[in-house]
Amino acid sequence: MKKIKVFAPASVTNVGSGFDVMGFAIEKPGDEIVLKMTDEPGIKITKITGDGGKLSKDPYKNTAGLSLISLVEHLEYKKGIEIELHKKMALGSGLGSSAASAVASVYAFNELLGKPLAKKELIQFALEGEKLTCGGTPHADNVAACLMGGFVIVRSLSPIDVVNIDYPPNLYCTIVHPHLEIITANTRKILRKHILLSDAVKQWGNVAGLVAGLVSGNYELIGNSLQDFIVEPVRSILIPNFYEVKNAALKAGAVGCSISGSGPSIFAFSKSKNSAEKVGDAMKKVLNGIGIGNDLYISKINKTGPRIISD
Amino acid sequence: MKKIKVFAPASVTNVGSGFDVMGFAIEKPGDEIVLKMTDEPGIKITKITGDGGKLSKDPYKNTAGLSLISLVEHLEYKKGIEIELHKKMALGSGLGSSAASAVASVYAFNELLGKPLAKKELIQFALEGEKLTCGGTPHADNVAACLMGGFVIVRSLSPIDVVNIDYPPNLYCTIVHPHLEIITANTRKILRKHILLSDAVKQWGNVAGLVAGLVSGNYELIGNSLQDFIVEPVRSILIPNFYEVKNAALKAGAVGCSISGSGPSIFAFSKSKNSAEKVGDAMKKVLNGIGIGNDLYISKINKTGPRIISD
Repeated sequence: MKKIKVFAPASVTNVGSGFDVMGFAIEKPGDEIVLKMTDEPGIKITKITGDGGKLSKDPYKNTAGLSLISLVEHLEYKKGIEIELHKKMALGSGLGSSAASAVASVYAFNELLGKPLAKKELIQFALEGEKLTCGGTPHADNVAACLMGGFVIVRSLSPIDVVNIDYPPNLYCTIVHPHLEIITANTRKILRKHILLSDAVKQWGNVAGLVAGLVSGNYELIGNSLQDFIVEPVRSILIPNFYEVKNAALKAGAVGCSISGSGPSIFAFSKSKNSAEKVGDAMKKVLNGIGIGNDLYISKINKTGPRIISD
Repeated sequence: MKKIKVFAPASVTNVGSGFDVMGFAIEKPGDEIVLKMTDEPGIKITKITGDGGKLSKDPYKNTAGLSLISLVEHLEYKKGIEIELHKKMALGSGLGSSAASAVASVYAFNELLGKPLAKKELIQFALEGEKLTCGGTPHADNVAACLMGGFVIVRSLSPIDVVNIDYPPNLYCTIVHPHLEIITANTRKILRKHILLSDAVKQWGNVAGLVAGLVSGNYELIGNSLQDFIVEPVRSILIPNFYEVKNAALKAGAVGCSISGSGPSIFAFSKSKNSAEKVGDAMKKVLNGIGIGNDLYISKINKTGPRIISD
């Protein structure tokens, strides 16, 4: 019997101006998965921890299960697999919780089989699981960031075209996760279907600036380019005191700050660990002041993506 | 009496997906200007050649004149200036003809005074002249590309934030200018004011990809990222057989092809001079076949922008 344990990281997507096209992996939190090959055919989820009982053990209704099913079918694998899923991050946090489970699952299986597929080829299978979360066409930004590691651009979904870009080696990310659950499908529904061309032009000027700032290590350009004219103004309504948290981060020295994914988590960039910690203190203080419980994560960008861990 | 002669290059803007935010300078064509300091106060345009009599000699109604007036006022220069403008490129070609005149004018005057301002600071004055052309808020992409040289991102117009980015050293540009005059103000009016968010996301995925492709020298990524979902489908209607020209360019080996600025010029990228020439032949052939006269320019990206030339 072969067995593997894999960690897959949380990810921050949208990254200010880059709605649906940019994302990066962080070092923590992240999910863990254990896969066991069995002789009895079929995929079974034997154990889920850390989900507060919210996730289904039916593999067809579970992100990790459904992703694995699509990969197993593709590879025409005929034996069985048992899954243990250990959620080490909150659901609906805006940190790509479901993507981490999906990626952990397909990455682990590909490793067990001796890497028949390249990392990039796994994206489409992890996306099959993501369909459960977003209720329709999945967006590849969390899956791509989690799987590829580093900073990614999802240039196109059809065909899938994901590109890794450089970023400053000392770029730190501070994340606060306010304890409010937000459903991704709803945060998408509140966005307007049509936008002004003039706003779109300002947005893609910032997207261009963000990529240029990241690859050249120009922090001022990164900070200015994070400004989101389209999505943050709408989604921030769902996060109490969002702008107070953001202003506190900027005042404490953050390079920039915006919503992580569809929220409610909020991320900020800093130029050093020390600065990222100060920024985190300032952000927490605002949430504590209005009685919203929260978690704080401080992390460099995660270059690697998922990795095998020992038991 | 002090005198200077300056060349300022044509520029390609929009660059496929980067509507209103991206541009680059080319080596030829370009405008030439001669400035003479005189003791008698006031700005006079003494001579214009190459414009077919279309441009005004009233400095307040001439791009080069109006740009210079705004700069002269800013620098509180009290003596006089005489301008000779030699247009070496067609008006309304989509190659930043008016921007080249405006840039030549402010660049020349700044040189004459011993560079009181940095290049970037001249953008705002050249833009004053551009207001004459676009009938309203000027767009800085042609001016920025022409003045800064190389490849530029206009991240923001207010405040003006222009960034140079790297590009592959062997990137060649083929331009065909079909002899049809298109008025910039009209090509803007035919664009829809509202666009689908889903199209905007595809567009800024490509903008991100284009910047990443240019700085990393990934030609495949550059080519894929040039795809414009918003502007090319509308403006191409004004250019007879645009898609035949584009397909001929791609078939002949071009990395990508789109409209230059607001047209009617069409640009294509190639990986070598030889390829750029083949692409040019293919593009010309289509236009010749339907009896549309045209000019062909083959050029590397112009790193320098404007330069002083001898008489």
